[in-house]
Amino acid sequence: MSYPEPLDSIIHPRHSGIATFMRLPYITDLKELDVAILGIPFDGSSSYRPGSRMAPREIRVMSVAVRPYNIALQVNPYKKHRIADYGDLVTDPFSIEETFKMIESGIDKLMEANVIPVAVGGDHGISYPILRSIAKKHGPLALIHVDAHPDTDDTQHGHKLTHGTPFRRAIEDNLIIPSKVIQIGIRGTAFYEDDLAYGEQLGFRVISAEEFMAMKIEDFKAAVHQIVGKTKTYLSFDIDGLDPSAAPGTVCPELGGLTSLHALQLIRSLLGLKLVGADIVCVSPLLDSTSRITSITAAQLIFEMLCVI
Amino acid sequence: MSYPEPLDSIIHPRHSGIATFMRLPYITDLKELDVAILGIPFDGSSSYRPGSRMAPREIRVMSVAVRPYNIALQVNPYKKHRIADYGDLVTDPFSIEETFKMIESGIDKLMEANVIPVAVGGDHGISYPILRSIAKKHGPLALIHVDAHPDTDDTQHGHKLTHGTPFRRAIEDNLIIPSKVIQIGIRGTAFYEDDLAYGEQLGFRVISAEEFMAMKIEDFKAAVHQIVGKTKTYLSFDIDGLDPSAAPGTVCPELGGLTSLHALQLIRSLLGLKLVGADIVCVSPLLDSTSRITSITAAQLIFEMLCVI
Amino acid sequence: MSYPEPLDSIIHPRHSGIATFMRLPYITDLKELDVAILGIPFDGSSSYRPGSRMAPREIRVMSVAVRPYNIALQVNPYKKHRIADYGDLVTDPFSIEETFKMIESGIDKLMEANVIPVAVGGDHGISYPILRSIAKKHGPLALIHVDAHPDTDDTQHGHKLTHGTPFRRAIEDNLIIPSKVIQIGIRGTAFYEDDLAYGEQLGFRVISAEEFMAMKIEDFKAAVHQIVGKTKTYLSFDIDGLDPSAAPGTVCPELGGLTSLHALQLIRSLLGLKLVGADIVCVSPLLDSTSRITSITAAQLIFEMLCVI
Amino acid sequence: MSYPEPLDSIIHPRHSGIATFMRLPYITDLKELDVAILGIPFDGSSSYRPGSRMAPREIRVMSVAVRPYNIALQVNPYKKHRIADYGDLVTDPFSIEETFKMIESGIDKLMEANVIPVAVGGDHGISYPILRSIAKKHGPLALIHVDAHPDTDDTQHGHKLTHGTPFRRAIEDNLIIPSKVIQIGIRGTAFYEDDLAYGEQLGFRVISAEEFMAMKIEDFKAAVHQIVGKTKTYLSFDIDGLDPSAAPGTVCPELGGLTSLHALQLIRSLLGLKLVGADIVCVSPLLDSTSRITSITAAQLIFEMLCVI
Amino acid sequence: MSYPEPLDSIIHPRHSGIATFMRLPYITDLKELDVAILGIPFDGSSSYRPGSRMAPREIRVMSVAVRPYNIALQVNPYKKHRIADYGDLVTDPFSIEETFKMIESGIDKLMEANVIPVAVGGDHGISYPILRSIAKKHGPLALIHVDAHPDTDDTQHGHKLTHGTPFRRAIEDNLIIPSKVIQIGIRGTAFYEDDLAYGEQLGFRVISAEEFMAMKIEDFKAAVHQIVGKTKTYLSFDIDGLDPSAAPGTVCPELGGLTSLHALQLIRSLLGLKLVGADIVCVSPLLDSTSRITSITAAQLIFEMLCVI
Amino acid sequence: MSYPEPLDSIIHPRHSGIATFMRLPYITDLKELDVAILGIPFDGSSSYRPGSRMAPREIRVMSVAVRPYNIALQVNPYKKHRIADYGDLVTDPFSIEETFKMIESGIDKLMEANVIPVAVGGDHGISYPILRSIAKKHGPLALIHVDAHPDTDDTQHGHKLTHGTPFRRAIEDNLIIPSKVIQIGIRGTAFYEDDLAYGEQLGFRVISAEEFMAMKIEDFKAAVHQIVGKTKTYLSFDIDGLDPSAAPGTVCPELGGLTSLHALQLIRSLLGLKLVGADIVCVSPLLDSTSRITSITAAQLIFEMLCVI
Repeated sequence: MSYPEPLDSIIHPRHSGIATFMRLPYITDLKELDVAILGIPFDGSSSYRPGSRMAPREIRVMSVAVRPYNIALQVNPYKKHRIADYGDLVTDPFSIEETFKMIESGIDKLMEANVIPVAVGGDHGISYPILRSIAKKHGPLALIHVDAHPDTDDTQHGHKLTHGTPFRRAIEDNLIIPSKVIQIGIRGTAFYEDDLAYGEQLGFRVISAEEFMAMKIEDFKAAVHQIVGKTKTYLSFDIDGLDPSAAPGTVCPELGGLTSLHALQLIRSLLGLKLVGADIVCVSPLLDSTSRITSITAAQLIFEMLCVI
Repeated sequence: MSYPEPLDSIIHPRHSGIATFMRLPYITDLKELDVAILGIPFDGSSSYRPGSRMAPREIRVMSVAVRPYNIALQVNPYKKHRIADYGDLVTDPFSIEETFKMIESGIDKLMEANVIPVAVGGDHGISYPILRSIAKKHGPLALIHVDAHPDTDDTQHGHKLTHGTPFRRAIEDNLIIPSKVIQIGIRGTAFYEDDLAYGEQLGFRVISAEEFMAMKIEDFKAAVHQIVGKTKTYLSFDIDGLDPSAAPGTVCPELGGLTSLHALQLIRSLLGLKLVGADIVCVSPLLDSTSRITSITAAQLIFEMLCVI
Repeated sequence: MSYPEPLDSIIHPRHSGIATFMRLPYITDLKELDVAILGIPFDGSSSYRPGSRMAPREIRVMSVAVRPYNIALQVNPYKKHRIADYGDLVTDPFSIEETFKMIESGIDKLMEANVIPVAVGGDHGISYPILRSIAKKHGPLALIHVDAHPDTDDTQHGHKLTHGTPFRRAIEDNLIIPSKVIQIGIRGTAFYEDDLAYGEQLGFRVISAEEFMAMKIEDFKAAVHQIVGKTKTYLSFDIDGLDPSAAPGTVCPELGGLTSLHALQLIRSLLGLKLVGADIVCVSPLLDSTSRITSITAAQLIFEMLCVI
Repeated sequence: MSYPEPLDSIIHPRHSGIATFMRLPYITDLKELDVAILGIPFDGSSSYRPGSRMAPREIRVMSVAVRPYNIALQVNPYKKHRIADYGDLVTDPFSIEETFKMIESGIDKLMEANVIPVAVGGDHGISYPILRSIAKKHGPLALIHVDAHPDTDDTQHGHKLTHGTPFRRAIEDNLIIPSKVIQIGIRGTAFYEDDLAYGEQLGFRVISAEEFMAMKIEDFKAAVHQIVGKTKTYLSFDIDGLDPSAAPGTVCPELGGLTSLHALQLIRSLLGLKLVGADIVCVSPLLDSTSRITSITAAQLIFEMLCVI
Repeated sequence: MSYPEPLDSIIHPRHSGIATFMRLPYITDLKELDVAILGIPFDGSSSYRPGSRMAPREIRVMSVAVRPYNIALQVNPYKKHRIADYGDLVTDPFSIEETFKMIESGIDKLMEANVIPVAVGGDHGISYPILRSIAKKHGPLALIHVDAHPDTDDTQHGHKLTHGTPFRRAIEDNLIIPSKVIQIGIRGTAFYEDDLAYGEQLGFRVISAEEFMAMKIEDFKAAVHQIVGKTKTYLSFDIDGLDPSAAPGTVCPELGGLTSLHALQLIRSLLGLKLVGADIVCVSPLLDSTSRITSITAAQLIFEMLCVI
Repeated sequence: MSYPEPLDSIIHPRHSGIATFMRLPYITDLKELDVAILGIPFDGSSSYRPGSRMAPREIRVMSVAVRPYNIALQVNPYKKHRIADYGDLVTDPFSIEETFKMIESGIDKLMEANVIPVAVGGDHGISYPILRSIAKKHGPLALIHVDAHPDTDDTQHGHKLTHGTPFRRAIEDNLIIPSKVIQIGIRGTAFYEDDLAYGEQLGFRVISAEEFMAMKIEDFKAAVHQIVGKTKTYLSFDIDGLDPSAAPGTVCPELGGLTSLHALQLIRSLLGLKLVGADIVCVSPLLDSTSRITSITAAQLIFEMLCVI
């Protein structure tokens, strides 16, 4: 059993070569993999400022800067798991419904092969079909959800399947366990007074950004492990969980968000959970800084996810 | 009968005030209007690089620089017609079908009130429902279509209603008269050898960008007037008819396009036609230059359209 | 008495419609209002990098993302006060003196109608004529002043009326009460050793950015309320109070400034003061990030101001 | 008599060294000079989008790429004249009147020393005080004026001294000879029907951009030399004479302008005139492209001016 | 013998998938290829503004928009030749000498396999080692060289191998036939009076940009075919042959360059020559426009090259 | 003995004049100086994203905003030392070896004249030849090294002299004292598990960014002074020590870095050390934000360095 290795940047300059996630080989034979990083370049379920469809390609480009060894966690994830770039799922830019079917059946193949997906969106709508597929295999899941917004709307513009509704749909379909949902980073403004009520009434643990940043990370870690325990867990990371200064390249940056250090600490504190899948969503390269720090950030956070799986 | 006037930039600096098209008043009572400039901020029927949904707002902002008197044509259009900013049509960012119905019924109201629409997209998909509404009132139309691409595909990704199909749909619905269709600016690459065959077989007059730029504008004008004559005519202007240097802010710029002078001359040569509607589409502000020249260009071309109606 | 409501983003996508502050209606009849958000698009009293004249328009555009309910303060300000976009004051781009007269007489109309102004600059020079008008009605005021710089110069380039002098002029005219002036965020470099002496000798409470960020927000809140008490208070917020990472789009960003969370906490701690007016100044859209986070930040801070009035 | 030479780019890489115009030495002793390139970083007489105050500095930076030998004209201007960077005139960012006095007295010093000014604005307002100074010495001048706009307004916002009025003021003060004024590049829209009437009635030769681009350059050259002859001549070049594609970094780009080749040909055709001064104005670096092509263009056009003096 | 086909954009949206040149498969087995598009991400031989090392990756990204059928030439090149993305040659970012050896030996492999290279730089230095390899196989070549600069310096900063010297080195090594060298687009400024003398004395046919744009394309075509005839020919295209408006993303844009239409016509006129290799160099993505038109242009010109091989 | 003074911004607007560091005079006579700020515009020893060669020029431009008096430290450094802009060292863009010799001999001149260098890179490779020169005069030095990366690689791409190796070379040459090396800000990912082992085994004090930000600044200060004491000390500041939000304009931003306040506090805590030289490196203006906050930050940090020397 061989472990795919990233291209060696000491031989191949980082500005060279065809861009894949983390410079890993592009492998589509699932038998060779334990974890697949895959793109889902679809933002049709997002309103307002567009562009997260461009994110997988851009994050691939910027991920060349991520080296293989995690100093903080003292681990090289590519030596623990067989990880590669699985390419992008096929999507239909003109239909949410068709695309969500494509996503679900695309993830089904990973489930059949016992491969853990790390999905790179795309907008937050994609989490719902991913959860449908994973829960088919693993049953209802715990959820760690980092985001500025709860994404538990019932509908948007009359539609059930949008970037604002994935976790209400997941609750309705019994894909996630309400008492094992932790939302971190919630803040800002809401359309209605009761926007947060849905989750709170179901027993979500909602940790606002301000609250999270005032906690000791050890306390956060203890709380998460206490709530989630050994339940199979999905991690969904909306880049707008971070502050606009750290992640400007997103649809709707909200003041008072996490710093990049908070984001690192947050993911690292998940070490030991039974992660069965993860995504990172809502990176909008067209809105990113000249230096593309939002894509750099997303690439690094994907790497941290690989290290805690 | 009063004529709406743009805000006087000699009193109100151009960087001041709430941005409307051409600094005209925002009027929704159609009885007060002959021509309505309206936004259709929808790019859900567009694939690849997104963003034309942001165009109406951005073009409003940049249109403050357009003064009321056209030196070349020696006309102030606001003294000839009652023109105002009619606001944006409501759209559904998650559904092409719903949005096209909203567009058609939105334009129906103008048709009932005998108001000529000058629509600011959005992507090229919007031309089809506009044509449906106008042709209901006026019967099949002549079409002046400026574009890098013929937009006569049958389907894209299996869908009938996209930014690549509006004029095939219009032909099928008998909204436009094939022998009175003139396409200008066509160039670049095609998916298949016969991409242009559809229109040619139906008798479209296809003038490539290279051919147009080599013609004398008088000859072009004569040809257009000879083909179209007194038939009621729709003008659909895709900003990618221009060269990337002149209009970078668009989904898919194609080399070898029109200069801004060509675009001005082209529209001015339409003076005397019976224009019953017009649109400008595919401006993508997120891809525009720092100086926003694509939005400036669109604003100026809208003004030229107003001058030849 | 009806309360103006922002356009409903669930029906009208946020990228649609004519841009007003917070999607509120544009209302110029002061009898219908308790609070008026108004633009003052003038940067003629600013030196070095220009552009805050473009801010009101740009902040209008980006404010579409601010929803009506404040989660942290649990309030919808539009249900407490009648608030609308009052448009922009007329300014004279070629004369500071003329513009300041226009501003003063423009605010006078609000004072007569008992309407509280929330002014969107423009550069910091505008605070002086606003204070002149408000103090005419209310007498000398307390001042909460967030800024990297004290703005108490005597002259700049020989001129008395500039963006560096408003609060010295306000002191000289007895518009503000020295012992009730609190300056927060001061830092960086000064032209002379005694740049800060003016305020300190008068009894200003100067809290450097470093000092503010090291305080507990409760202690800050207590101090402010203790100093200001029930005195009528003006809030002047220069966006350069924030760190360059959080608000790059300004003339002269200074290292070591507030995070966006600090800015939110600061304004929220003012709840309970008798605010009779407020401004936000020195946003320079031409220097903003691709994602326009400075304008987003300004829009959100305006919303927070509305919530504590 | 020694000739200042630009820094040798073969030894000193172009990205090195303190930026001066054309890498020439910074010389303030007028006795050492025949021609002085000087900056006038003032845009207080400009309305709408600001920023030309930043142009002298930025054009210095980008001018490092201009090599000393003009292939087309077969001349090295630094071997014909003693040319250097004279630095920037002192300006008053808060007062048009004060600044115009400073400009006039600043140029007076050059006139006394028989040094030809090549001024880098700043906005077009600066041409008026320059002309005042030059005409004091040389008497009424011929004028070659390249621009999208005639700049012969009487007032703007009630002011006599603005970027829209310099040439009316110059006429009123008898600084330029109406029958020897040639305006090239005029186009676009006007506020009023008679905006162009002022110059035409006085006998200006107005060549629209469209007309200029349709002429043979030899015919243009003949016309200019026939009109101007041996009269002492001032060249005023507003960068918006060029097309937005060629010079996006300006306040108000107008469609249908000159290409960069046209601009080169235009200036080169002035060889043989008695140029006693020149300026280039309205470059706004904050609006320029990432590659800064407008500043590059301005730098190159300054070089061409040096070659025809 | 199978022909590699580009990914079908009708199924796979253009914003999806791992980016290769023209969406072609990544193939490193030379036996499967007739033509290899390969990246040479090296800009160490370039001075002044850096960045062309980033070009192969960026051009891959933007090339997704190029469709497979060339309307003007009526050809699908992928049906005539077996063409694929061969990846990037290994380079040494710290040594020109090492990198040039790597390039030469890298191209040697193509020569052995009778595969025609279409190289994507990188700076213009790379043409020299490519020519060394090709001439080893084919003997001295004719050269079509599109560029603003002649690139025939002897040394730069004392070095023989730089972006300013490739064609002098090629002459010295007898890689190209002086009487069969055609340089198109030369213009701008030179360091010395005799910068162009080297080529002219050797019998190069130098066609300035101004001269080229004034020629009928048929006359140009006739001249090229007359000069080159059946000699094996190399095409070297420096993107700065184009005007800054068309290709801003380059080290040193020069006014008065080719439009994008001229570039298309130029390459198309080479149809019928015996092209044995080609390159496109000096695209600097860090200096490109927001819409990335320089990379789009390069991608399209590569496609045109494929069509005339 | 006269002290050079910065240009007075109260007379000369900050957007005026030829840009030098801090508006100080350009002085090359070392006898007139105690401290020389000098540019080293070389990035040939850097891989991946280029551009720090442009930094000295850009930092000069942005440094105009730094005023002469440091409020926090209560000092005007220009009254304590004779400080000026010494210009840029000559570099060879095509050779690391040649450039390093030029740097060493360039600094040698300062050493002979007892002038302290504050060098503005360029990439981190430049620290090695600077240290060679300083240690020749002063013997082995203590080192304060702020950076995301340890820069103690043995080779990169087979080369000994790169931006990743300066401090291993310095150790090998006995230029720095291992037990007096303090590295602050280290974090992120590494190529190999033992990337940090080199320094740790030698006794470097490595303080990760996370560790530094959790320390009280007083404790940090005490630790530094305890370790370094009265040993002559060099300060090397890689801008990527800061977080991407604070310093986006750099080759390889790493999450979890210092805020701008941390950077200020860090440098200020060095007051009292015997600093004999300093550098700031790896600012890449081509990757900076629109507002150029990385260059502003670098300029301010240089000023802080001047204040603690």
